[in-house]
Amino acid sequence: MSGGAPRASEEALIARYFAPLAGEGADGLRDDAARLTPSPGHDLVLTADAVVAGVHYFPDDPPDSIAAKALGVNLSDLAAKGAAPRGFLLTLALAPDWSEDWLAAFARGLGESAERHGCPLLGGDTVKAGGATLIGVTALGEVPAGTMVRRTTASAGDRVCVSGTIGDAALGLRLRRDPAFAGSLDDDARGALADRYLRPRPRLALAPVLRRFASAAMDVSDGLAGDLAKMLKGTGLTATVEAAAVPLSPAAGRAVADRPDLHDLALTGGDDYEILCTVAPERLDAFREAAAAAGVPVRAIGTVAAGEGAPVFLGTDGRPRAFASAAFSHF
Amino acid sequence: MSGGAPRASEEALIARYFAPLAGEGADGLRDDAARLTPSPGHDLVLTADAVVAGVHYFPDDPPDSIAAKALGVNLSDLAAKGAAPRGFLLTLALAPDWSEDWLAAFARGLGESAERHGCPLLGGDTVKAGGATLIGVTALGEVPAGTMVRRTTASAGDRVCVSGTIGDAALGLRLRRDPAFAGSLDDDARGALADRYLRPRPRLALAPVLRRFASAAMDVSDGLAGDLAKMLKGTGLTATVEAAAVPLSPAAGRAVADRPDLHDLALTGGDDYEILCTVAPERLDAFREAAAAAGVPVRAIGTVAAGEGAPVFLGTDGRPRAFASAAFSHF
Repeated sequence: MSGGAPRASEEALIARYFAPLAGEGADGLRDDAARLTPSPGHDLVLTADAVVAGVHYFPDDPPDSIAAKALGVNLSDLAAKGAAPRGFLLTLALAPDWSEDWLAAFARGLGESAERHGCPLLGGDTVKAGGATLIGVTALGEVPAGTMVRRTTASAGDRVCVSGTIGDAALGLRLRRDPAFAGSLDDDARGALADRYLRPRPRLALAPVLRRFASAAMDVSDGLAGDLAKMLKGTGLTATVEAAAVPLSPAAGRAVADRPDLHDLALTGGDDYEILCTVAPERLDAFREAAAAAGVPVRAIGTVAAGEGAPVFLGTDGRPRAFASAAFSHF
Repeated sequence: MSGGAPRASEEALIARYFAPLAGEGADGLRDDAARLTPSPGHDLVLTADAVVAGVHYFPDDPPDSIAAKALGVNLSDLAAKGAAPRGFLLTLALAPDWSEDWLAAFARGLGESAERHGCPLLGGDTVKAGGATLIGVTALGEVPAGTMVRRTTASAGDRVCVSGTIGDAALGLRLRRDPAFAGSLDDDARGALADRYLRPRPRLALAPVLRRFASAAMDVSDGLAGDLAKMLKGTGLTATVEAAAVPLSPAAGRAVADRPDLHDLALTGGDDYEILCTVAPERLDAFREAAAAAGVPVRAIGTVAAGEGAPVFLGTDGRPRAFASAAFSHF
């Protein structure tokens, strides 16, 4: 490291902060690689997503929420594919101004998230960033062989469904950037929206339900409208969605009631980390029941149809809504 | 992206440059996750290493060599563990000044390396870096169940062996930083050293031989002296190495003959990506034969012994060598 007080070596940092998080097969992070024995008759499901300070999170976000986000966005992908987590690898590129206090809080938060979701640390790399801190995670999950839920396999006639509520994180981010925008929202509502931006809640409980019922699925990370367009792109399918059917939380509902123009932000903003999936109409009731039994509310918001072109979101007047920006891009 | 001419979206970049590299199970990178079915009766071996512009490589290095390094340093870890590559995930964080020409050359080089080593792209993430470009790779390999070669499992009496030649990359880096240092080296010798720094050659051919013969192994990435110390740390073992027995290439041999002080750099500099392993003395001849049959020269350079303390490198005078810096740290 250049300048300042001497700091611990990479090896010492790993031993102090990350070795306690190591799962079976990681040998306390003392080796250069980890072993993982997949369950017999299972396929592995692999995903990699990185978050960058100043791009995907605010540098002054609480370190434990940054850790929860870095891991959570990957677990959300596993959940959408119907997979159960097995472990993850971490690439941590630290900005020159990192402190041991930050790192200790980050590792604590990472350990808590990993524990909560049954996804132990298997290995990784710690390097000096040439600028902002970057946290890269590769997450590994598994599914019974041949059952990974794909993204582009919907059929005409399938119902389009989403889990939980949509738009909270985008509104939370807006609130963070412009506190005056809160309007009539009380502290609880503001807190709820802010928290959805800070701490994704990967819908892992829904994974086995998706394997049984979903014809296609993905997580909503770049905005519902844009992600639904991605799901159907190149498949010869489109969809019609009733914008009013998209589930909003009480806080988001109040914000949109105050300022109807925020509804577009809710439908196109990113960081929801809910599940977007398609289900054959005759299986919709059973899907809803199974999801409820798993503790996850789901709602049908539209229908897949043969045809080209982006999915259409219909307003309460029955007319298509035009979005200024269909998808949030982190890139 | 901020400023400048409009650039392709992340999705378009992936489709153009990376989808052609996608292996089976990656579905042309059109999904959010990849499937991997491990061979029956095999364990997966997982490793993650990142390279950062200005830290691990020069920003003006040829893009194809940067790609070869990013993948190669990970494949070198798999080789040392006795594993055959199955695929990799890529986290590409691009500095604000990236160009499509650079990206096209990088992707071409990555594809060539992946093809050469039988390690297809399975997925990944492309993000905006908050500074220098970072390339993170998570590589997956496999070994017959229970046969991963560990790092800290040497025994007293084992011989310490290395593959290939040591010190070339460190000398190549020195030459890059200070061309005047070349002394009497001719162009071929300079080129050979420079190339060893630019393009790691993962010793994958040695992987099955290590599984049969090595009691412990790791790759040499942070300098032979430091990595041998890591291998034995906490095991109650130390080692004695004959410094003159450490194999040098003709070019490195000439450089050291010109300037004997460079021998320390060769023994402690990083980026060798050779294999360091221990072998029971009665199996040494068979190990050498099997390695030769695999096309990889190996040489015994020392012996493991019970005891604490860092390994000792003996000079030709029979006295321990003291190194100013035992290991190169990228951190």
